[in-house]
Amino acid sequence: MQYQHFQKQFDAFKEQINRYLIKYLDAQMSTSPDIYEAMRYSLLAGGKRLRPVLCVSVYELFKREIASILPVACALEYIHTYSLVHDDLPCMDNDDFRRGVPTCHKKFGEAYAVLAGDCFLTEAFGLISQWPDSAEMAILVKEVVNASGGKGLIAGQLMDILSENQDVSCDTVEYIHEHKTGKLIVASVRLGAICGKATPKELEKLTSFAKSLGLAFQIQDDILDVVGSKELLGKNVGQDTKLHKATFPALYGLECSRQKLADAIEHAISKLEYFGERSRFLQDLTRFVASRAE
Amino acid sequence: MQYQHFQKQFDAFKEQINRYLIKYLDAQMSTSPDIYEAMRYSLLAGGKRLRPVLCVSVYELFKREIASILPVACALEYIHTYSLVHDDLPCMDNDDFRRGVPTCHKKFGEAYAVLAGDCFLTEAFGLISQWPDSAEMAILVKEVVNASGGKGLIAGQLMDILSENQDVSCDTVEYIHEHKTGKLIVASVRLGAICGKATPKELEKLTSFAKSLGLAFQIQDDILDVVGSKELLGKNVGQDTKLHKATFPALYGLECSRQKLADAIEHAISKLEYFGERSRFLQDLTRFVASRAE
Repeated sequence: MQYQHFQKQFDAFKEQINRYLIKYLDAQMSTSPDIYEAMRYSLLAGGKRLRPVLCVSVYELFKREIASILPVACALEYIHTYSLVHDDLPCMDNDDFRRGVPTCHKKFGEAYAVLAGDCFLTEAFGLISQWPDSAEMAILVKEVVNASGGKGLIAGQLMDILSENQDVSCDTVEYIHEHKTGKLIVASVRLGAICGKATPKELEKLTSFAKSLGLAFQIQDDILDVVGSKELLGKNVGQDTKLHKATFPALYGLECSRQKLADAIEHAISKLEYFGERSRFLQDLTRFVASRAE
Repeated sequence: MQYQHFQKQFDAFKEQINRYLIKYLDAQMSTSPDIYEAMRYSLLAGGKRLRPVLCVSVYELFKREIASILPVACALEYIHTYSLVHDDLPCMDNDDFRRGVPTCHKKFGEAYAVLAGDCFLTEAFGLISQWPDSAEMAILVKEVVNASGGKGLIAGQLMDILSENQDVSCDTVEYIHEHKTGKLIVASVRLGAICGKATPKELEKLTSFAKSLGLAFQIQDDILDVVGSKELLGKNVGQDTKLHKATFPALYGLECSRQKLADAIEHAISKLEYFGERSRFLQDLTRFVASRAE
Protein backbone atom coordinates (compact mmCIF):
# COMPACT_ATOMS: atom_id res chain seq x y z
CA MET A 1 0.00 0.00 0.00
CA GLN A 2 2.78 2.36 1.07
CA TYR A 3 4.75 1.17 -1.93
CA GLN A 4 1.80 1.75 -4.24
CA HIS A 5 1.61 5.34 -3.06
CA PHE A 6 5.32 5.81 -3.76
CA GLN A 7 5.00 4.24 -7.19
CA LYS A 8 2.14 6.57 -8.06
CA GLN A 9 4.14 9.60 -7.02
CA PHE A 10 7.22 8.38 -8.88
CA ASP A 11 5.17 7.85 -12.03
CA ALA A 12 3.65 11.31 -11.70
CA PHE A 13 7.12 12.89 -11.54
CA LYS A 14 8.29 10.72 -14.41
CA GLU A 15 5.34 11.71 -16.54
CA GLN A 16 5.99 15.41 -16.05
CA ILE A 17 9.64 14.87 -16.91
CA ASN A 18 8.84 12.84 -20.01
CA ARG A 19 6.32 15.39 -21.16
CA TYR A 20 8.91 18.15 -20.85
CA LEU A 21 11.60 16.07 -22.59
CA ILE A 22 9.34 15.34 -25.56
CA LYS A 23 8.07 18.89 -25.84
CA TYR A 24 11.59 20.26 -25.76
CA LEU A 25 12.95 17.79 -28.32
CA ASP A 26 10.02 18.16 -30.69
CA ALA A 27 10.38 21.92 -30.67
CA GLN A 28 13.90 21.47 -32.04
CA MET A 29 13.19 18.87 -34.70
CA SER A 30 13.23 20.16 -38.22
CA THR A 31 11.79 18.63 -41.36
CA SER A 32 15.25 17.79 -42.75
CA PRO A 33 17.02 14.69 -41.45
CA ASP A 34 18.57 15.69 -38.19
CA ILE A 35 20.26 14.53 -35.08
CA TYR A 36 17.16 14.95 -32.93
CA GLU A 37 15.70 11.74 -34.35
CA ALA A 38 18.58 9.73 -32.91
CA MET A 39 18.35 11.68 -29.67
CA ARG A 40 14.60 11.10 -29.41
CA TYR A 41 15.18 7.38 -29.97
CA SER A 42 17.78 7.11 -27.23
CA LEU A 43 15.89 9.28 -24.80
CA LEU A 44 12.49 7.69 -25.19
CA ALA A 45 13.57 4.05 -25.37
CA GLY A 46 12.95 3.75 -21.65
CA GLY A 47 14.84 4.64 -18.54
CA LYS A 48 13.79 5.25 -14.97
CA ARG A 49 14.53 9.01 -15.05
CA LEU A 50 16.13 8.49 -11.65
CA ARG A 51 18.34 11.60 -11.89
CA PRO A 52 15.63 14.08 -12.86
CA VAL A 53 13.19 12.51 -10.38
CA LEU A 54 15.80 12.97 -7.65
CA CYS A 55 16.36 16.58 -8.65
CA VAL A 56 12.65 17.39 -8.76
CA SER A 57 11.79 15.59 -5.53
CA VAL A 58 14.64 17.23 -3.62
CA TYR A 59 13.51 20.60 -4.98
CA GLU A 60 10.02 19.78 -3.72
CA LEU A 61 11.38 19.54 -0.17
CA PHE A 62 11.71 23.32 -0.41
CA LYS A 63 9.25 24.59 -3.02
CA ARG A 64 5.72 23.73 -3.98
CA GLU A 65 5.63 24.13 -7.73
CA ILE A 66 8.05 22.09 -9.77
CA ALA A 67 7.54 23.42 -13.31
CA SER A 68 10.50 25.80 -13.14
CA ILE A 69 12.99 23.06 -12.15
CA LEU A 70 12.09 20.79 -15.09
CA PRO A 71 14.71 22.13 -17.56
CA VAL A 72 17.46 21.67 -14.95
CA ALA A 73 16.18 18.19 -14.05
CA CYS A 74 16.02 17.19 -17.70
CA ALA A 75 19.58 18.43 -18.25
CA LEU A 76 20.64 15.64 -15.88
CA GLU A 77 18.83 13.08 -18.03
CA TYR A 78 20.58 14.56 -21.08
CA ILE A 79 23.99 14.12 -19.42
CA HIS A 80 23.10 10.59 -18.35
CA THR A 81 21.85 9.66 -21.83
CA TYR A 82 24.92 11.13 -23.54
CA SER A 83 27.11 9.00 -21.30
CA LEU A 84 25.14 5.85 -22.14
CA VAL A 85 25.19 6.50 -25.89
CA HIS A 86 28.95 7.07 -25.92
CA ASP A 87 29.66 4.23 -23.45
CA ASP A 88 27.80 1.79 -25.70
CA LEU A 89 30.03 2.59 -28.73
CA PRO A 90 32.12 -0.28 -30.14
CA CYS A 91 35.35 1.41 -29.02
CA MET A 92 34.02 1.67 -25.46
CA ASP A 93 31.76 -1.00 -23.88
CA ASN A 94 30.49 -2.26 -27.25
CA ASP A 95 26.91 -2.93 -26.17
CA ASP A 96 24.24 -3.86 -28.72
CA PHE A 97 21.23 -3.47 -26.44
CA ARG A 98 20.16 -0.84 -23.95
CA ARG A 99 16.81 -0.45 -22.25
CA GLY A 100 15.47 -3.40 -24.26
CA VAL A 101 16.16 -2.00 -27.72
CA PRO A 102 19.19 -1.77 -30.02
CA THR A 103 21.68 0.87 -28.88
CA CYS A 104 21.90 4.16 -30.75
CA HIS A 105 24.87 3.14 -32.91
CA LYS A 106 23.23 -0.18 -33.80
CA LYS A 107 20.11 1.66 -34.96
CA PHE A 108 21.59 4.80 -36.57
CA GLY A 109 25.29 4.02 -37.10
CA GLU A 110 28.32 5.15 -35.15
CA ALA A 111 28.56 8.67 -36.56
CA TYR A 112 25.01 9.44 -35.44
CA ALA A 113 25.73 7.99 -32.01
CA VAL A 114 28.85 10.13 -31.52
CA LEU A 115 26.97 13.24 -32.64
CA ALA A 116 23.80 12.46 -30.68
CA GLY A 117 25.90 12.07 -27.52
CA ASP A 118 27.71 15.33 -28.28
CA CYS A 119 24.38 17.05 -28.79
CA PHE A 120 22.90 15.78 -25.51
CA LEU A 121 25.97 17.02 -23.69
CA THR A 122 25.98 20.43 -25.37
CA GLU A 123 22.28 21.05 -24.96
CA ALA A 124 22.27 19.92 -21.34
CA PHE A 125 23.99 23.24 -20.68
CA GLY A 126 21.36 25.02 -22.75
CA LEU A 127 18.71 23.51 -20.48
CA ILE A 128 20.58 24.57 -17.36
CA SER A 129 20.96 28.10 -18.71
CA GLN A 130 17.17 28.42 -18.54
CA TRP A 131 17.28 28.62 -14.74
CA PRO A 132 16.19 32.21 -14.12
CA ASP A 133 18.51 33.14 -11.23
CA SER A 134 21.81 33.61 -13.04
CA ALA A 135 23.99 33.55 -9.91
CA GLU A 136 22.54 30.14 -9.02
CA MET A 137 22.79 29.09 -12.66
CA ALA A 138 26.55 29.69 -12.59
CA ILE A 139 26.78 27.33 -9.60
CA LEU A 140 24.68 24.70 -11.39
CA VAL A 141 27.03 24.75 -14.38
CA LYS A 142 30.07 24.30 -12.13
CA GLU A 143 28.37 21.41 -10.28
CA VAL A 144 27.51 19.62 -13.52
CA VAL A 145 30.99 20.14 -15.01
CA ASN A 146 32.53 18.83 -11.83
CA ALA A 147 30.30 15.73 -11.87
CA SER A 148 30.66 14.93 -15.54
CA GLY A 149 34.07 16.24 -16.65
CA GLY A 150 37.57 14.82 -16.40
CA LYS A 151 37.39 14.57 -12.62
CA GLY A 152 33.93 12.97 -12.71
CA LEU A 153 32.04 10.75 -15.11
CA ILE A 154 34.80 10.76 -17.74
CA ALA A 155 37.45 9.77 -15.19
CA GLY A 156 35.21 6.89 -14.11
CA GLN A 157 34.63 5.70 -17.64
CA LEU A 158 38.33 5.88 -18.45
CA MET A 159 39.28 3.87 -15.36
CA ASP A 160 36.53 1.38 -16.18
CA ILE A 161 37.99 0.80 -19.65
CA LEU A 162 41.55 0.58 -18.34
CA SER A 163 40.45 -1.97 -15.72
CA GLU A 164 38.93 -4.42 -18.17
CA ASN A 165 40.62 -7.81 -18.01
CA GLN A 166 42.77 -6.57 -15.13
CA ASP A 167 42.93 -7.60 -11.51
CA VAL A 168 41.57 -4.57 -9.74
CA SER A 169 41.61 -3.50 -6.13
CA CYS A 170 38.59 -2.55 -4.02
CA ASP A 171 39.76 1.05 -4.22
CA THR A 172 39.58 0.94 -8.00
CA VAL A 173 36.05 -0.48 -7.98
CA GLU A 174 34.95 2.25 -5.62
CA TYR A 175 36.72 4.91 -7.68
CA ILE A 176 34.93 3.76 -10.84
CA HIS A 177 31.52 3.70 -9.22
CA GLU A 178 31.92 6.99 -7.45
CA HIS A 179 33.00 8.74 -10.64
CA LYS A 180 30.91 6.93 -13.22
CA THR A 181 27.63 6.89 -11.31
CA GLY A 182 27.95 8.47 -7.88
CA LYS A 183 28.93 12.00 -8.81
CA LEU A 184 26.03 12.59 -11.19
CA ILE A 185 23.56 11.24 -8.64
CA VAL A 186 25.06 13.59 -6.06
CA ALA A 187 24.82 16.46 -8.56
CA SER A 188 21.16 15.60 -9.25
CA VAL A 189 20.36 15.97 -5.57
CA ARG A 190 22.51 19.07 -5.12
CA LEU A 191 20.98 20.84 -8.12
CA GLY A 192 17.50 20.31 -6.67
CA ALA A 193 18.72 21.62 -3.31
CA ILE A 194 20.54 24.65 -4.74
CA CYS A 195 17.53 25.66 -6.84
CA GLY A 196 15.37 25.16 -3.76
CA LYS A 197 17.66 27.55 -1.85
CA ALA A 198 18.63 24.93 0.75
CA THR A 199 20.71 26.16 3.70
CA PRO A 200 24.36 25.00 3.87
CA LYS A 201 23.39 22.47 6.53
CA GLU A 202 20.53 21.10 4.45
CA LEU A 203 22.81 20.89 1.42
CA GLU A 204 25.36 18.97 3.46
CA LYS A 205 22.77 16.45 4.71
CA LEU A 206 21.41 15.94 1.21
CA THR A 207 24.89 15.52 -0.27
CA SER A 208 25.68 12.84 2.27
CA PHE A 209 22.35 11.15 1.51
CA ALA A 210 23.10 11.25 -2.22
CA LYS A 211 26.55 9.71 -1.82
CA SER A 212 25.09 6.68 -0.06
CA LEU A 213 22.22 6.46 -2.51
CA GLY A 214 24.65 6.48 -5.43
CA LEU A 215 26.69 3.72 -3.83
CA ALA A 216 23.54 1.66 -3.19
CA PHE A 217 22.42 2.18 -6.75
CA GLN A 218 25.67 0.92 -8.17
CA ILE A 219 25.90 -2.12 -5.88
CA GLN A 220 22.37 -3.13 -6.86
CA ASP A 221 23.26 -2.61 -10.52
CA ASP A 222 26.25 -4.93 -10.16
CA ILE A 223 24.17 -7.52 -8.30
CA LEU A 224 21.51 -7.42 -11.01
CA ASP A 225 24.16 -8.05 -13.64
CA VAL A 226 24.88 -11.33 -11.86
CA VAL A 227 21.40 -12.45 -10.83
CA GLY A 228 19.12 -10.58 -13.27
CA SER A 229 17.89 -11.71 -16.63
CA LYS A 230 17.89 -10.08 -20.04
CA GLU A 231 14.09 -9.93 -20.04
CA LEU A 232 14.02 -7.94 -16.82
CA LEU A 233 16.90 -5.60 -17.59
CA GLY A 234 16.48 -5.06 -21.30
CA LYS A 235 20.19 -5.43 -21.86
CA ASN A 236 22.57 -8.32 -22.07
CA VAL A 237 23.37 -9.49 -18.55
CA GLY A 238 26.61 -11.03 -17.50
CA GLN A 239 28.31 -8.37 -19.65
CA ASP A 240 30.39 -7.21 -16.70
CA THR A 241 31.53 -10.74 -15.97
CA LYS A 242 32.22 -11.38 -19.64
CA LEU A 243 34.44 -8.33 -19.85
CA HIS A 244 36.03 -9.13 -16.47
CA LYS A 245 34.81 -5.78 -15.26
CA ALA A 246 35.43 -4.59 -11.77
CA THR A 247 32.17 -5.12 -9.84
CA PHE A 248 31.15 -5.45 -6.21
CA PRO A 249 30.08 -9.13 -6.48
CA ALA A 250 33.33 -10.01 -8.29
CA LEU A 251 35.33 -8.45 -5.47
CA TYR A 252 33.30 -9.08 -2.34
CA GLY A 253 31.02 -11.94 -3.33
CA LEU A 254 27.24 -11.72 -3.57
CA GLU A 255 26.38 -11.95 0.12
CA CYS A 256 28.87 -9.35 1.23
CA SER A 257 27.70 -7.07 -1.58
CA ARG A 258 24.14 -7.38 -0.32
CA GLN A 259 25.28 -6.38 3.15
CA LYS A 260 27.08 -3.35 1.75
CA LEU A 261 23.90 -2.44 -0.09
CA ALA A 262 21.83 -2.65 3.10
CA ASP A 263 24.37 -0.48 4.95
CA ALA A 264 24.33 2.16 2.23
CA ILE A 265 20.53 2.29 2.21
CA GLU A 266 20.42 2.63 5.97
CA HIS A 267 22.97 5.44 5.94
CA ALA A 268 21.14 7.29 3.17
CA ILE A 269 17.82 7.14 5.00
CA SER A 270 19.38 8.27 8.28
CA LYS A 271 20.44 11.51 6.56
CA LEU A 272 16.90 12.15 5.34
CA GLU A 273 15.45 11.96 8.84
CA TYR A 274 16.59 15.56 9.35
CA PHE A 275 13.83 16.59 6.92
CA GLY A 276 11.10 14.61 8.70
CA GLU A 277 7.92 13.41 7.06
CA ARG A 278 8.31 15.59 3.95
CA SER A 279 11.25 13.37 2.91
CA ARG A 280 8.95 10.30 2.80
CA PHE A 281 9.14 10.06 -0.99
CA LEU A 282 12.95 10.21 -0.99
CA GLN A 283 13.09 7.55 1.72
CA ASP A 284 10.83 5.27 -0.30
CA LEU A 285 12.88 6.02 -3.40
CA THR A 286 15.99 4.90 -1.56
CA ARG A 287 14.38 1.59 -0.58
CA PHE A 288 13.10 1.21 -4.12
CA VAL A 289 16.63 1.51 -5.49
CA ALA A 290 17.73 -1.41 -3.33
CA SER A 291 14.83 -3.65 -4.30
CA ARG A 292 14.48 -2.80 -7.96
CA ALA A 293 14.79 -5.55 -10.53
CA GLU A 294 15.64 -3.23 -13.42
CA MET B 1 56.09 46.03 -42.35
CA GLN B 2 52.40 46.46 -41.58
CA TYR B 3 52.06 42.71 -41.78
CA GLN B 4 54.98 42.18 -39.40
CA HIS B 5 53.27 44.38 -36.83
CA PHE B 6 50.09 42.31 -37.18
CA GLN B 7 52.00 39.05 -36.88
CA LYS B 8 53.69 40.25 -33.70
CA GLN B 9 50.39 41.20 -32.13
CA PHE B 10 48.79 37.94 -33.23
CA ASP B 11 51.65 35.98 -31.68
CA ALA B 12 51.37 37.96 -28.46
CA PHE B 13 47.67 37.10 -28.16
CA LYS B 14 48.39 33.50 -29.06
CA GLU B 15 51.09 33.24 -26.43
CA GLN B 16 48.81 34.51 -23.68
CA ILE B 17 46.14 32.06 -24.79
CA ASN B 18 48.56 29.14 -24.91
CA ARG B 19 49.94 30.02 -21.50
CA TYR B 20 46.47 30.02 -20.05
CA LEU B 21 45.55 26.73 -21.78
CA ILE B 22 48.63 24.97 -20.44
CA LYS B 23 48.26 26.36 -16.93
CA TYR B 24 44.63 25.34 -16.81
CA LEU B 25 45.25 21.83 -18.13
CA ASP B 26 48.26 21.18 -15.95
CA ALA B 27 46.33 22.19 -12.85
CA GLN B 28 43.89 19.37 -13.61
CA MET B 29 46.37 16.64 -14.44
CA SER B 30 46.78 13.99 -11.79
CA THR B 31 49.55 11.49 -11.33
CA SER B 32 47.32 8.58 -12.38
CA PRO B 33 46.77 7.97 -16.08
CA ASP B 34 44.11 10.38 -17.09
CA ILE B 35 42.27 11.95 -19.94
CA TYR B 36 44.17 15.23 -19.68
CA GLU B 37 47.19 13.67 -21.37
CA ALA B 38 45.19 13.03 -24.51
CA MET B 39 43.64 16.49 -24.24
CA ARG B 40 47.02 18.13 -23.81
CA TYR B 41 48.30 16.29 -26.86
CA SER B 42 45.41 17.42 -29.06
CA LEU B 43 45.42 20.95 -27.75
CA LEU B 44 49.13 21.58 -28.00
CA ALA B 45 49.83 19.88 -31.31
CA GLY B 46 49.44 23.21 -33.06
CA GLY B 47 46.58 25.32 -34.23
CA LYS B 48 46.22 28.98 -34.99
CA ARG B 49 43.98 29.73 -31.98
CA LEU B 50 41.86 31.78 -34.38
CA ARG B 51 38.71 31.57 -32.26
CA PRO B 52 40.23 32.67 -28.95
CA VAL B 53 42.31 35.35 -30.70
CA LEU B 54 39.11 36.69 -32.27
CA CYS B 55 37.35 36.69 -28.92
CA VAL B 56 40.21 38.44 -27.14
CA SER B 57 40.82 41.02 -29.86
CA VAL B 58 37.13 41.93 -30.12
CA TYR B 59 37.03 42.27 -26.33
CA GLU B 60 40.02 44.57 -26.62
CA LEU B 61 37.97 46.95 -28.78
CA PHE B 62 36.13 47.76 -25.57
CA LYS B 63 38.40 46.97 -22.62
CA ARG B 64 42.08 47.42 -21.92
CA GLU B 65 43.03 44.40 -19.85
CA ILE B 66 42.40 41.00 -21.40
CA ALA B 67 43.26 38.61 -18.54
CA SER B 68 39.65 38.20 -17.43
CA ILE B 69 38.42 37.15 -20.89
CA LEU B 70 41.00 34.35 -21.26
CA PRO B 71 38.87 31.53 -19.76
CA VAL B 72 35.98 32.42 -22.08
CA ALA B 73 38.33 32.69 -25.08
CA CYS B 74 39.91 29.34 -24.26
CA ALA B 75 36.47 27.72 -23.95
CA LEU B 76 36.09 28.43 -27.67
CA GLU B 77 39.35 26.60 -28.38
CA TYR B 78 38.07 23.71 -26.25
CA ILE B 79 34.87 23.52 -28.33
CA HIS B 80 36.86 23.73 -31.55
CA THR B 81 39.31 21.03 -30.44
CA TYR B 82 36.53 18.71 -29.28
CA SER B 83 34.92 19.01 -32.71
CA LEU B 84 38.22 18.19 -34.46
CA VAL B 85 38.95 15.18 -32.25
CA HIS B 86 35.48 13.72 -32.81
CA ASP B 87 35.40 14.63 -36.52
CA ASP B 88 38.67 12.77 -37.07
CA LEU B 89 37.27 9.49 -35.67
CA PRO B 90 37.11 6.52 -38.05
CA CYS B 91 33.29 6.58 -38.02
CA MET B 92 33.34 10.26 -39.02
CA ASP B 93 35.96 11.76 -41.37
CA ASN B 94 38.53 9.07 -40.57
CA ASP B 95 41.60 11.33 -40.61
CA ASP B 96 44.99 10.02 -39.51
CA PHE B 97 46.80 13.37 -39.37
CA ARG B 98 45.87 16.74 -37.95
CA ARG B 99 48.11 19.75 -37.44
CA GLY B 100 51.07 17.71 -38.66
CA VAL B 101 50.86 14.91 -36.12
CA PRO B 102 48.80 11.73 -35.74
CA THR B 103 45.22 12.42 -34.71
CA CYS B 104 44.13 11.75 -31.14
CA HIS B 105 42.61 8.32 -31.86
CA LYS B 106 45.72 7.26 -33.83
CA LYS B 107 47.90 8.18 -30.88
CA PHE B 108 45.74 7.14 -27.91
CA GLY B 109 43.06 4.86 -29.37
CA GLU B 110 39.43 5.57 -30.13
CA ALA B 111 38.10 5.32 -26.58
CA TYR B 112 40.49 8.04 -25.43
CA ALA B 113 39.55 10.21 -28.40
CA VAL B 114 35.82 9.92 -27.68
CA LEU B 115 36.41 10.72 -24.00
CA ALA B 116 38.91 13.53 -24.65
CA GLY B 117 36.40 15.18 -26.99
CA ASP B 118 33.66 14.76 -24.39
CA CYS B 119 35.91 16.27 -21.76
CA PHE B 120 36.81 19.32 -23.89
CA LEU B 121 33.12 19.92 -24.52
CA THR B 122 32.12 19.53 -20.87
CA GLU B 123 34.92 21.65 -19.50
CA ALA B 124 34.38 24.39 -22.07
CA PHE B 125 31.30 25.23 -20.03
CA GLY B 126 33.36 25.14 -16.85
CA LEU B 127 35.66 27.75 -18.40
CA ILE B 128 32.72 29.92 -19.43
CA SER B 129 31.26 29.67 -15.94
CA GLN B 130 34.32 31.56 -14.67
CA TRP B 131 33.05 34.79 -16.23
CA PRO B 132 32.28 36.90 -13.15
CA ASP B 133 29.08 38.63 -14.30
CA SER B 134 26.56 35.81 -14.03
CA ALA B 135 23.84 37.51 -16.08
CA GLU B 136 26.31 37.86 -18.96
CA MET B 137 27.56 34.34 -18.31
CA ALA B 138 24.05 32.96 -18.88
CA ILE B 139 24.04 34.68 -22.28
CA LEU B 140 27.48 33.26 -23.13
CA VAL B 141 26.27 29.72 -22.41
CA LYS B 142 23.23 30.19 -24.65
CA GLU B 143 25.41 31.61 -27.44
CA VAL B 144 27.84 28.68 -27.29
CA VAL B 145 25.05 26.08 -27.15
CA ASN B 146 23.39 27.73 -30.13
CA ALA B 147 26.65 27.70 -32.11
CA SER B 148 27.72 24.19 -31.24
CA GLY B 149 24.52 22.16 -30.59
CA GLY B 150 22.07 20.43 -32.88
CA LYS B 151 21.28 23.65 -34.75
CA GLY B 152 24.96 24.58 -35.09
CA LEU B 153 28.20 22.68 -35.38
CA ILE B 154 26.58 19.27 -34.96
CA ALA B 155 24.01 19.98 -37.69
CA GLY B 156 26.87 20.99 -39.99
CA GLN B 157 28.88 17.89 -39.25
CA LEU B 158 25.86 15.65 -39.79
CA MET B 159 25.04 17.26 -43.13
CA ASP B 160 28.70 16.98 -44.11
CA ILE B 161 28.68 13.23 -43.47
CA LEU B 162 25.35 12.75 -45.24
CA SER B 163 26.66 14.66 -48.27
CA GLU B 164 29.71 12.49 -48.83
CA ASN B 165 29.67 10.88 -52.26
CA GLN B 166 26.48 12.78 -53.10
CA ASP B 167 25.78 15.47 -55.65
CA VAL B 168 25.14 18.47 -53.47
CA SER B 169 23.64 21.86 -54.16
CA CYS B 170 25.24 25.24 -53.46
CA ASP B 171 22.72 25.66 -50.65
CA THR B 172 23.99 22.49 -49.00
CA VAL B 173 27.63 23.59 -49.21
CA GLU B 174 26.74 26.90 -47.64
CA TYR B 175 24.64 25.18 -44.96
CA ILE B 176 27.55 22.92 -44.03
CA HIS B 177 30.06 25.76 -43.84
CA GLU B 178 27.78 28.09 -41.95
CA HIS B 179 27.00 25.45 -39.34
CA LYS B 180 30.30 23.59 -39.14
CA THR B 181 32.59 26.62 -39.11
CA GLY B 182 30.68 29.87 -39.39
CA LYS B 183 28.58 29.75 -36.26
CA LEU B 184 31.48 29.15 -33.88
CA ILE B 185 33.47 31.99 -35.48
CA VAL B 186 30.45 34.25 -35.05
CA ALA B 187 30.12 33.08 -31.44
CA SER B 188 33.81 33.83 -30.82
CA VAL B 189 33.31 37.42 -31.93
CA ARG B 190 30.01 37.82 -30.11
CA LEU B 191 31.40 36.45 -26.83
CA GLY B 192 34.19 39.02 -26.94
CA ALA B 193 31.66 41.75 -27.68
CA ILE B 194 29.18 40.67 -24.98
CA CYS B 195 31.92 40.49 -22.34
CA GLY B 196 33.13 43.90 -23.53
CA LYS B 197 29.60 45.26 -23.00
CA ALA B 198 29.17 46.24 -26.65
CA THR B 199 26.03 48.22 -27.51
CA PRO B 200 23.36 46.43 -29.60
CA LYS B 201 24.52 48.36 -32.68
CA GLU B 202 28.17 47.40 -32.08
CA LEU B 203 27.14 43.79 -31.55
CA GLU B 204 25.20 43.82 -34.81
CA LYS B 205 28.16 45.24 -36.79
CA LEU B 206 30.53 42.70 -35.27
CA THR B 207 28.14 39.82 -35.94
CA SER B 208 27.91 40.82 -39.58
CA PHE B 209 31.72 41.10 -39.73
CA ALA B 210 32.06 37.64 -38.21
CA LYS B 211 29.66 36.01 -40.66
CA SER B 212 31.72 37.22 -43.61
CA LEU B 213 34.97 36.31 -41.90
CA GLY B 214 33.69 32.80 -41.26
CA LEU B 215 32.70 32.43 -44.89
CA ALA B 216 36.09 33.71 -46.04
CA PHE B 217 37.84 31.33 -43.70
CA GLN B 218 35.99 28.34 -45.05
CA ILE B 219 36.44 29.26 -48.71
CA GLN B 220 40.18 29.64 -48.14
CA ASP B 221 40.23 26.30 -46.32
CA ASP B 222 38.57 24.61 -49.29
CA ILE B 223 40.94 26.32 -51.74
CA LEU B 224 43.93 25.19 -49.69
CA ASP B 225 42.68 21.63 -49.78
CA VAL B 226 42.98 21.82 -53.57
CA VAL B 227 46.16 23.85 -54.00
CA GLY B 228 47.98 23.31 -50.69
CA SER B 229 50.47 20.64 -49.82
CA LYS B 230 50.74 18.24 -46.91
CA GLU B 231 53.93 19.94 -45.71
CA LEU B 232 52.22 23.29 -45.43
CA LEU B 233 48.97 22.13 -43.92
CA GLY B 234 50.13 19.30 -41.68
CA LYS B 235 47.26 17.13 -42.80
CA ASN B 236 46.51 15.04 -45.84
CA VAL B 237 45.33 17.34 -48.59
CA GLY B 238 42.91 16.35 -51.29
CA GLN B 239 40.89 14.61 -48.54
CA ASP B 240 37.81 16.57 -49.45
CA THR B 241 38.15 15.65 -53.11
CA LYS B 242 38.86 12.05 -52.23
CA LEU B 243 35.71 11.83 -50.15
CA HIS B 244 33.76 13.78 -52.77
CA LYS B 245 33.02 16.33 -50.15
CA ALA B 246 31.00 19.40 -50.87
CA THR B 247 33.47 22.29 -51.27
CA PHE B 248 33.49 25.72 -52.89
CA PRO B 249 36.06 24.83 -55.58
CA ALA B 250 34.15 21.64 -56.43
CA LEU B 251 30.99 23.63 -56.94
CA TYR B 252 32.12 26.98 -58.30
CA GLY B 253 35.58 26.23 -59.66
CA LEU B 254 38.79 27.73 -58.29
CA GLU B 255 38.58 31.16 -59.88
CA CYS B 256 35.02 31.83 -58.89
CA SER B 257 35.82 30.63 -55.34
CA ARG B 258 38.67 33.16 -55.19
CA GLN B 259 36.27 35.91 -56.21
CA LYS B 260 33.82 34.86 -53.51
CA LEU B 261 36.68 34.94 -51.02
CA ALA B 262 37.64 38.47 -52.03
CA ASP B 263 34.02 39.62 -51.73
CA ALA B 264 33.66 38.12 -48.26
CA ILE B 265 36.87 39.78 -47.08
CA GLU B 266 35.77 43.14 -48.41
CA HIS B 267 32.38 42.87 -46.75
CA ALA B 268 33.94 41.85 -43.43
CA ILE B 269 36.34 44.80 -43.44
CA SER B 270 33.58 47.24 -44.36
CA LYS B 271 31.77 46.31 -41.15
CA LEU B 272 34.88 47.00 -39.08
CA GLU B 273 35.21 50.54 -40.39
CA TYR B 274 32.54 51.59 -37.89
CA PHE B 275 35.15 51.02 -35.17
CA GLY B 276 37.84 53.09 -36.88
CA GLU B 277 41.53 52.71 -36.24
CA ARG B 278 41.14 50.56 -33.11
CA SER B 279 39.89 47.74 -35.36
CA ARG B 280 43.20 47.70 -37.27
CA PHE B 281 44.21 44.33 -35.84
CA LEU B 282 40.88 42.73 -36.78
CA GLN B 283 41.14 44.17 -40.29
CA ASP B 284 44.63 42.73 -40.69
CA LEU B 285 43.43 39.43 -39.25
CA THR B 286 40.71 39.31 -41.90
CA ARG B 287 43.25 39.84 -44.69
CA PHE B 288 45.51 37.27 -43.07
CA VAL B 289 42.74 34.67 -43.19
CA ALA B 290 42.43 35.16 -46.94
CA SER B 291 46.13 34.90 -47.60
CA ARG B 292 47.10 32.20 -45.15
CA ALA B 293 48.76 29.06 -46.41
CA GLU B 294 47.81 26.92 -43.39
